[in-house]
Amino acid sequence: MNPVTRMIEVRQNVLKHNDVVARELRQRFHDAGVFVVSLVSSPGAGKTALLEKTLTLLHKQSRVAALVGDLATENDAARLARSEAPVRQIVTGTVCHLEAAMIQTALEGWNLNGLDFLFVENVGNLVCPASYDLGEDLRLVLMSVTEGEDKPLKYPTIFNSADVALITKIDLKEAVEFDSAAAYRNIQAVRPGMTILEVSSKSNLGIIELLEFLNSRRAGARAVASS
Amino acid sequence: MNPVTRMIEVRQNVLKHNDVVARELRQRFHDAGVFVVSLVSSPGAGKTALLEKTLTLLHKQSRVAALVGDLATENDAARLARSEAPVRQIVTGTVCHLEAAMIQTALEGWNLNGLDFLFVENVGNLVCPASYDLGEDLRLVLMSVTEGEDKPLKYPTIFNSADVALITKIDLKEAVEFDSAAAYRNIQAVRPGMTILEVSSKSNLGIIELLEFLNSRRAGARAVASS
Repeated sequence: MNPVTRMIEVRQNVLKHNDVVARELRQRFHDAGVFVVSLVSSPGAGKTALLEKTLTLLHKQSRVAALVGDLATENDAARLARSEAPVRQIVTGTVCHLEAAMIQTALEGWNLNGLDFLFVENVGNLVCPASYDLGEDLRLVLMSVTEGEDKPLKYPTIFNSADVALITKIDLKEAVEFDSAAAYRNIQAVRPGMTILEVSSKSNLGIIELLEFLNSRRAGARAVASS
Repeated sequence: MNPVTRMIEVRQNVLKHNDVVARELRQRFHDAGVFVVSLVSSPGAGKTALLEKTLTLLHKQSRVAALVGDLATENDAARLARSEAPVRQIVTGTVCHLEAAMIQTALEGWNLNGLDFLFVENVGNLVCPASYDLGEDLRLVLMSVTEGEDKPLKYPTIFNSADVALITKIDLKEAVEFDSAAAYRNIQAVRPGMTILEVSSKSNLGIIELLEFLNSRRAGARAVASS
């Protein structure tokens, strides 16, 4: 068998194993009543900045925590800790995505019953994280205006795996001549009906709307869970 | 054996196979006298815009061509074709990097003896392409000012695998409050002595310097080859 065929087969086994662990995690999150939101994007799209803003604001009204994945550094955890929410770093080494088993290990000894929201920031990558279910309730895919309007067409799998598209760094829209209509068209072409929100962690544009959206989604999930 | 251990073993075999093909490619490029430059970066760092500019300008004085890798679309090849240089697209499907064998296939029937420069634009990804030698003479890693200064520390392997760092979208430096000193420090921490060039495909800042750099590197490689 050629090595590429074997690679694909072994990869399918890894994914199957991941799905089993993700299902266990989802049940555990559900039982604890914690709403889990993951963030995926290319490197530098603004995941950490948006998460720091979100944690800081949500922390005042809800019990929030975060897990943050990175290849090599703990910089993001240090940045997020400024929000005063509990944060744990997952260092993945050379692995370009988080896996459900990494989440499970990182949560050891953590009492999830005390949480309303758990955020999971994935490794910056528009390819690898797409195939790995982390047991989350909601997956946000971020694309910054500086990356160009064509990203959904070039990375359709990750947009398909996500529930909501966030267009970030919207304060730079004019400077980079971002074409919103084209971006919306490209997102809808890949995932028709996808919710799109525009935000800027720098100017705060759209941040309140994002928090309201997350709260309403959490309320909806709890209503279904308790009915 | 657990699936992750097997994945790593199979991956090592794939990499070994890639190295063999890359060596063959390098010999073929050398024999044909073509200087091969590859570009890696995260999605949206500006590889295609920079390549379009480079091809358009180099095309006037040298014989240039390009291969461009993408998961799902042929948009980039269409953009690059405007430069009037010959361009071929490699669609990788769900594979997050180019491999030497893909280059080999894409070059079938192409007379390399007629070329001075061949550019290879990798899939937008700061992780996967790092491990795959494509037989190139020079690997450029791009990071845009909008991505933040910390990318070299977070993705050290790709910076280590590259020869030159290009800081792109330098026209947006003020708008995003980019800290050049920190970026240079982070690049040098990961790869001491690495050449760093600053460019903007929009304002043309640094483009002439980049072309001069590529020409001098090509001249140096030819001098060694013919000595």
